[in-house]
Amino acid sequence: MFHDFKLTDDRPVAVQVKDHMKRLIIKGALQADQKLPSTRELSLLLNVSRNAIIAAYEGLEDDGLSYTVRGKGSYVAAISGGGSTTAPSWQPDWHARTNGHAKSAVKLDRMKRGILAERGTISFTSIAPDEKLFDLDNVRRAFLDRMAIEGNVLLNYGYAKGYKPLIDYLLRYMDHKGVNIKGKDMLITNGFTEGLDMVLSALRRPDGAVLCENPTHNTALKLLKLHGFEVKGIPMERDGIDLHELDRALAERTYDCAYFVPSYHNPTGIVTSPEKRLALMKRMAERRIPIIEDGFNEELRYSGSHVAPLMATAGDGNGVIYLGSFSKVLFPGLRVGWVLADRELIDYLESIKRARTIHTSTLDQSLLYQYLHNGNLEKYLKKARAEYKRKYEWTKQCIEAHVPYVRMTGDGGLHLFVAFEEGFDTRELLAACSRQGVIFTPGEMFYTGEGEGRHTMRIGFSRVNDEEIGKGIRIIGETAKQLTN
Amino acid sequence: MFHDFKLTDDRPVAVQVKDHMKRLIIKGALQADQKLPSTRELSLLLNVSRNAIIAAYEGLEDDGLSYTVRGKGSYVAAISGGGSTTAPSWQPDWHARTNGHAKSAVKLDRMKRGILAERGTISFTSIAPDEKLFDLDNVRRAFLDRMAIEGNVLLNYGYAKGYKPLIDYLLRYMDHKGVNIKGKDMLITNGFTEGLDMVLSALRRPDGAVLCENPTHNTALKLLKLHGFEVKGIPMERDGIDLHELDRALAERTYDCAYFVPSYHNPTGIVTSPEKRLALMKRMAERRIPIIEDGFNEELRYSGSHVAPLMATAGDGNGVIYLGSFSKVLFPGLRVGWVLADRELIDYLESIKRARTIHTSTLDQSLLYQYLHNGNLEKYLKKARAEYKRKYEWTKQCIEAHVPYVRMTGDGGLHLFVAFEEGFDTRELLAACSRQGVIFTPGEMFYTGEGEGRHTMRIGFSRVNDEEIGKGIRIIGETAKQLTN
Repeated sequence: MFHDFKLTDDRPVAVQVKDHMKRLIIKGALQADQKLPSTRELSLLLNVSRNAIIAAYEGLEDDGLSYTVRGKGSYVAAISGGGSTTAPSWQPDWHARTNGHAKSAVKLDRMKRGILAERGTISFTSIAPDEKLFDLDNVRRAFLDRMAIEGNVLLNYGYAKGYKPLIDYLLRYMDHKGVNIKGKDMLITNGFTEGLDMVLSALRRPDGAVLCENPTHNTALKLLKLHGFEVKGIPMERDGIDLHELDRALAERTYDCAYFVPSYHNPTGIVTSPEKRLALMKRMAERRIPIIEDGFNEELRYSGSHVAPLMATAGDGNGVIYLGSFSKVLFPGLRVGWVLADRELIDYLESIKRARTIHTSTLDQSLLYQYLHNGNLEKYLKKARAEYKRKYEWTKQCIEAHVPYVRMTGDGGLHLFVAFEEGFDTRELLAACSRQGVIFTPGEMFYTGEGEGRHTMRIGFSRVNDEEIGKGIRIIGETAKQLTN
Repeated sequence: MFHDFKLTDDRPVAVQVKDHMKRLIIKGALQADQKLPSTRELSLLLNVSRNAIIAAYEGLEDDGLSYTVRGKGSYVAAISGGGSTTAPSWQPDWHARTNGHAKSAVKLDRMKRGILAERGTISFTSIAPDEKLFDLDNVRRAFLDRMAIEGNVLLNYGYAKGYKPLIDYLLRYMDHKGVNIKGKDMLITNGFTEGLDMVLSALRRPDGAVLCENPTHNTALKLLKLHGFEVKGIPMERDGIDLHELDRALAERTYDCAYFVPSYHNPTGIVTSPEKRLALMKRMAERRIPIIEDGFNEELRYSGSHVAPLMATAGDGNGVIYLGSFSKVLFPGLRVGWVLADRELIDYLESIKRARTIHTSTLDQSLLYQYLHNGNLEKYLKKARAEYKRKYEWTKQCIEAHVPYVRMTGDGGLHLFVAFEEGFDTRELLAACSRQGVIFTPGEMFYTGEGEGRHTMRIGFSRVNDEEIGKGIRIIGETAKQLTN
């Protein structure tokens, strides 16, 4: 049994020896009160230094797995559980024991049924940031700076609402976007997704309904459905939501809330015009419908004039719940987002947050804070905007040259949205393209109605290099032409 | 308006100038097409270098807030939203708009109604680790090691199930605890709390009931109630759950699942005996009741022989769902826990996880992984066990000397549980002690029934120093004696 031992990697040798012996004891290969080999013997058997064996034996004794008899050596302790003393084993049928919520979560989980990209595939499916832009030195610097200031604090429990310096920074940040923060408060969340999930948890009502753009952000759509809302999608025009259709929907029934992505709409990339923003706000205020505003990629606007968030046009009213995140702008691996809303609502959300995840990683929050505080955001955005703008223009140019599209939208960000003629099926296109090593996101998943948007696709270009953009779009275009002929 | 400008902290000057100007534009103090001061003028006005002004103006233009007229200078761009163009403002009544879930979350949120400890208070309420034990150098080392290996990966999106190297490490870790990992899988969560919340989300049924120890972990109790389970608490004896009471409860009705903390029960600190573990497992298997096993502080056992988790006694059966975390052992600020369970159940939980928080912070996961991989856990545990053991013995000694208790339990960990005579009210004791600068946790919140456990209290000693332990326990004891006379 000692011959199974292999030094596998660069973990300390003593730890590996201890783990090996522990396993033998727990699995019952070494029995209670059996004498262990002397440290000298085991050192020879395992071809490991005697010091490592001595440290390993000490560790075993600390764990209550062995005991020492003075002048005789180490013996295996009597242990409970494990190989020798097992309870009756049985196998639950989890399909029968899990509820509708669990089953809906799987059903709505597109990632589980996505096409697996093989190595070398040109993938336009991602709208995550380009890793090559990450300024790792500044991240490292921010970590070391913050650890030096309050390392102990960062590693212990924090507050459910979030890390105070980050909250203060983000409140000022929102103030600079023109938002009146009077009467409002902020909760830090594990990214945008947790923020939306908690807001919906607090507002969900049996048979509630929600308004949104159609198409819309697929993660949001999934959550709205998981929470049991009836989802009413309003078609998008070139400058934002179709107000005529909105009025029709408003005449039909009442809504618990509305979910809008006004600044860089996902998937269409449309920036809602100032006029439509005002018209939208007026209608929502008249009907007393709270708005959940998804601040998605506001920061990555790289053309056109400044557009303030919907929340900034609400004055001191508190009918807008703003969800922010730097995930697509900076680092998605740091799961940090924020909810800015009426103080009273944040008070509810804080309790929900505490019940579910206690608080967001203090390390993530403090690292992000220090990175921002060190003034890195401006520099990073300058670099990122220039790079994404270049890619955006190149992708657009390629699509114009090769793809037989009917409509293309996207005023910036990390993606473009392409519509073919009605009747065209982008899932067929995807199947044909993936055989040639190119994949993209069929638009259907962004639509609120069954079977809608089959003639559309989203092209995310952030993580594809110029050469592959050219090659990939050409393949999509040529394949689409073949399918339309 | 330029005289308001003050250089407030160590953020880059250009960023501060830009933020100040941005605010003036967005708030409407500077109007569209108004000429901005020349860089030379503003440099004099703000008493800031001209280079900083030039950089700030470039930033404004990048953000679409200004434009340049060649040979003339910078002008304010027309912007939408903000101070000048506001929509009608309104104020939702969030109390009326939030649902029962939100209200229960607030009602069950004890943190919101806890006693605020003033500076200098001796607080026995915490069972968080002692920050002074944190080995910051090893944490720093782990961060830098991992950043050097794959910094880009750590900052971008990861997988819902978790960071692969950490999963592999923890699977081996659980294997070394004697668990048969065949047919099982692992999901990384934002600490224990998210793990339990997601498991309950998947198993929750209308009118479902759950078995647990009584008293039990207050966070778990809160979540069980929030999910709408009927909670059946089984009294604790010195060596674990009262089997006679368990049999009575099992005869009464069916249960969806059971929640047990066998290894260091919170709040009583009892380690369930090997015999009771087997008896418990047999009963649950007979009735086909899945067990949620809370591995709370298994690692902080510092006396007695090795005890395997319940899961290790289940052989290849998959009726146990194990929830693990290093939060109380290592660093709570890193929100990392894990669920080890049947592969089929993990598949459901993975989709729920993806819907709610996408994935746990890659930075937290990879830092923890590297810290463990570097072999720090063993060293840290050795130090922590020695320190906590010393404090434990000292606290116990103080309680024995000063407190008129009827029963005291706690075989290790970070806390002791004390019961006075029935009829004694520890909330009264707390009120009297807090006036003398000493606080603790009244036991009532850990009990499943209304008004139960009023004669009990939990004394957490991990973050209190020796002198304060002595002083604090003496005050508690003397005050208790006064109240019983």
